[in-house]
Amino acid sequence: MTAYDRLTARAARLATLNEAQSVLSWDASAMMPKGGAAARGDQFAVLASLAHGLATAPELADDLAEAEANPPADPWQAENLRLLRAAHTRATALPNDLVEALARVGNDCEQIWRGARAASDFAAVQPKLTELFGLVREKAQAYGEALGMSPYDAMMDTYQRGITAADATAIFAEYEAFLRDALPRVEELQNSRPAPIQPQGPFPEDVQEALCRRLSLRTGLEAEHSRLDRSTHPFCGGTPTDVRITTRYSTDDFGRALMGVLHETGHALYERGLPEAFARQPVGEAAGMAAHESQSLIIEMQAARSDAFLRFLGPELHKTFGGDAAPYAPENLACITRRVSRGFIRVDADEMTYPAHVILRFRFEQALMTGDLAVADLPGAWAEGMQNLLGITPPDDAQGVLQDIHWYAGIMGYFPSYSLGAMAAAQLMAAARRDVPGLDDGLSQGDFAPLLGWLRTKFHSQGSRYGFNDLLRHATGKKLDPADFRAHLMARYL
Amino acid sequence: MTAYDRLTARAARLATLNEAQSVLSWDASAMMPKGGAAARGDQFAVLASLAHGLATAPELADDLAEAEANPPADPWQAENLRLLRAAHTRATALPNDLVEALARVGNDCEQIWRGARAASDFAAVQPKLTELFGLVREKAQAYGEALGMSPYDAMMDTYQRGITAADATAIFAEYEAFLRDALPRVEELQNSRPAPIQPQGPFPEDVQEALCRRLSLRTGLEAEHSRLDRSTHPFCGGTPTDVRITTRYSTDDFGRALMGVLHETGHALYERGLPEAFARQPVGEAAGMAAHESQSLIIEMQAARSDAFLRFLGPELHKTFGGDAAPYAPENLACITRRVSRGFIRVDADEMTYPAHVILRFRFEQALMTGDLAVADLPGAWAEGMQNLLGITPPDDAQGVLQDIHWYAGIMGYFPSYSLGAMAAAQLMAAARRDVPGLDDGLSQGDFAPLLGWLRTKFHSQGSRYGFNDLLRHATGKKLDPADFRAHLMARYL
Repeated sequence: MTAYDRLTARAARLATLNEAQSVLSWDASAMMPKGGAAARGDQFAVLASLAHGLATAPELADDLAEAEANPPADPWQAENLRLLRAAHTRATALPNDLVEALARVGNDCEQIWRGARAASDFAAVQPKLTELFGLVREKAQAYGEALGMSPYDAMMDTYQRGITAADATAIFAEYEAFLRDALPRVEELQNSRPAPIQPQGPFPEDVQEALCRRLSLRTGLEAEHSRLDRSTHPFCGGTPTDVRITTRYSTDDFGRALMGVLHETGHALYERGLPEAFARQPVGEAAGMAAHESQSLIIEMQAARSDAFLRFLGPELHKTFGGDAAPYAPENLACITRRVSRGFIRVDADEMTYPAHVILRFRFEQALMTGDLAVADLPGAWAEGMQNLLGITPPDDAQGVLQDIHWYAGIMGYFPSYSLGAMAAAQLMAAARRDVPGLDDGLSQGDFAPLLGWLRTKFHSQGSRYGFNDLLRHATGKKLDPADFRAHLMARYL
Repeated sequence: MTAYDRLTARAARLATLNEAQSVLSWDASAMMPKGGAAARGDQFAVLASLAHGLATAPELADDLAEAEANPPADPWQAENLRLLRAAHTRATALPNDLVEALARVGNDCEQIWRGARAASDFAAVQPKLTELFGLVREKAQAYGEALGMSPYDAMMDTYQRGITAADATAIFAEYEAFLRDALPRVEELQNSRPAPIQPQGPFPEDVQEALCRRLSLRTGLEAEHSRLDRSTHPFCGGTPTDVRITTRYSTDDFGRALMGVLHETGHALYERGLPEAFARQPVGEAAGMAAHESQSLIIEMQAARSDAFLRFLGPELHKTFGGDAAPYAPENLACITRRVSRGFIRVDADEMTYPAHVILRFRFEQALMTGDLAVADLPGAWAEGMQNLLGITPPDDAQGVLQDIHWYAGIMGYFPSYSLGAMAAAQLMAAARRDVPGLDDGLSQGDFAPLLGWLRTKFHSQGSRYGFNDLLRHATGKKLDPADFRAHLMARYL
């Protein structure tokens, strides 16, 4: 057995252990009775400590050095070796007491945040958040030094490699300028039109669930490799051969669950399309969180909200829910599913204003990291920032700085992924339309095969072989080009 | 930290890892889409190998010796230490290549058995079963030597400590004599009565499921610590704070699912009642498989089929399913749920003939272990044995030697637990009736609290503090006394 073989065998073992963790995590959200929570926490802790043991085993350093002295000729294997090195660098970069403090303080802070958000009381969580950010800064510092990056770039790289804070800064500045010009015009046009006709419920949950599952499978997701269940917070989990989608239903509105399921289906299709030959190896994994978000959004935002697909979806919805046909006319559905509106809550935002929410958080994260912004000043800065970006001021902290879990769980550097993914989705869709002439004809008949085939070849099957910009270059011929996203918005909204 | 503390910390870690395995196992049976099977197999293998690593860590031998040199004064802790020693003896008794061969050949044999059973073709599985039994004999030999027991006693002890093959031999001989006398008389009496009125279906699955859940919770099982789901083979899994019951439904017959769920509920209540102070320690676990079966059967056979409970159940069923009231009259329900009938299939057997199925297997297992019976001679011996015990001959091997998975998965020494458990259930119920005057009044109102309270105090809360006979002595004042089971059968059937 060569050093490289030993490394991949160990990586596979670690990935398999993480699969177990992932299924248990799905179970905790979708199935577990409340009374199992404490024991499940212990199970996660034991699995995490065993995983940490595998990731930092003393033999790894020698095997990495030996393999690097004579690296594999195959480019996939060579990249895999580089990723194994990077994973080892991360796993060994943090002192044990920092890892433990992050887990403990992160957990405490998340618990306090739940109460603080319910009471809209930022002061209640401010001390713990300050403590947590101190630890996150130490972590970012250590990662940055080990990887030769700035602390914030090292955190971004945790979630998406191949794109930097400097890249994002330029992209977001450009988008901010675009939004200042385009948003009022879109709103004016939208207001000049009659209000859409709302479908009348109630829409029974089991009917919605069957519809969601049917449409999810229609995209090309295989029934024998997936499930659809319910949880408070929708997500896509499980493992590449057994993906688990969840959503929640409201009997007043079917659109949220349906678009949510199609979003998660995009994530699921990506997992299903990863290269099997490198399953359970770093190079066989998804390329990062921005890459992942591009896949959920290309299904949800680009395909499912397209004129073409709405022509298929309208009659399908009418057949499913019955009643008056008018709300299900494709043009009416378009008005409903593509409504632009300035709001306080990121997860409820339309695709045009969504980046404003991300820009705000991206800027604050960097200022918090350098110390230019104090935790105590966050609520004020938030109100000012929202006013500046979207012209609205949240009535309370629950609808402002307390709305997202990320920071309170110690997650920093993740937010840019959402909007970089949205932009990549537009760029990928434009390229797919160029490469595959029948793409929209397919969608208008509910046929995702032309789009999915292109995504599998150009994107899914590439695993983690490339960083973000190089992956887009491979798939579309150029690095991330936000002009495609702006062009998409102009075409759809103006 | 003392040596004993180090041992218990490691035991808790291992138990927690096994909990993760248990939830994944439930998922594999109740939730997992087919396409996840291969990955799940890998996940189990990695977890098993990590668990083996924890169970055989080199530090354990030193810590055990150190703790035993100065054993804890507390009797629970002292017993826990003895059980930790026994677990270590087992974990280190088998050479690695035997463990691997057992896993590999056991898995192969089980796969071949599935096909052989479907084709009713014993010859197809005979060579692999012969190979597997050779390995099982080696294992029994090694366990026996390490534990100072005969090979077969060492296998029985794997599933239930505190009762030997010699004990079971005497008990079963006595039962065989009883059955030869009582069974024809029961059949004569049964045949002299008019046939019971069968409830008319269809019984919708979701209505059955709601009924099963309602009655399962009525026993005292807590909703926030349990689930009820569906699987091909009903079982009780999960963890003590998160028990997962499964069953399957047929729209023709609600009785099987209902009694099945009450059976699994008995297992679940036992897990819920184990001593929390010793959670994740050997002494805090269930006392063995016969002990476990006594708890499922005291709920299903003793309580749920009692005259008292049927008075509550009849109206409940009629309210649930509607239609004609006559089939739900308690006396009629009694005839339906307590029908004695000589059959080929163990899992379908009534409580009176069930031990005959176990006696047959128990005798064959010992003869296979000593070599007095060759694998090739099993089908013939089976036909002869069934004829001798129950006066019937199975038409094929699928309804004979191929019906149960146990042997084909390398499980030997388990079968006696079923009937020892049934006998213990009768003994426990008799003792509970003596100790708790209002027990049957409670059951006649669907109130299990008097029975459950007694079981919790006398049995559940004792964990693994005692072996089987001592546990019964603690709860009822005497070791296993099969006379109580015979008295129960006489009272119920004659």
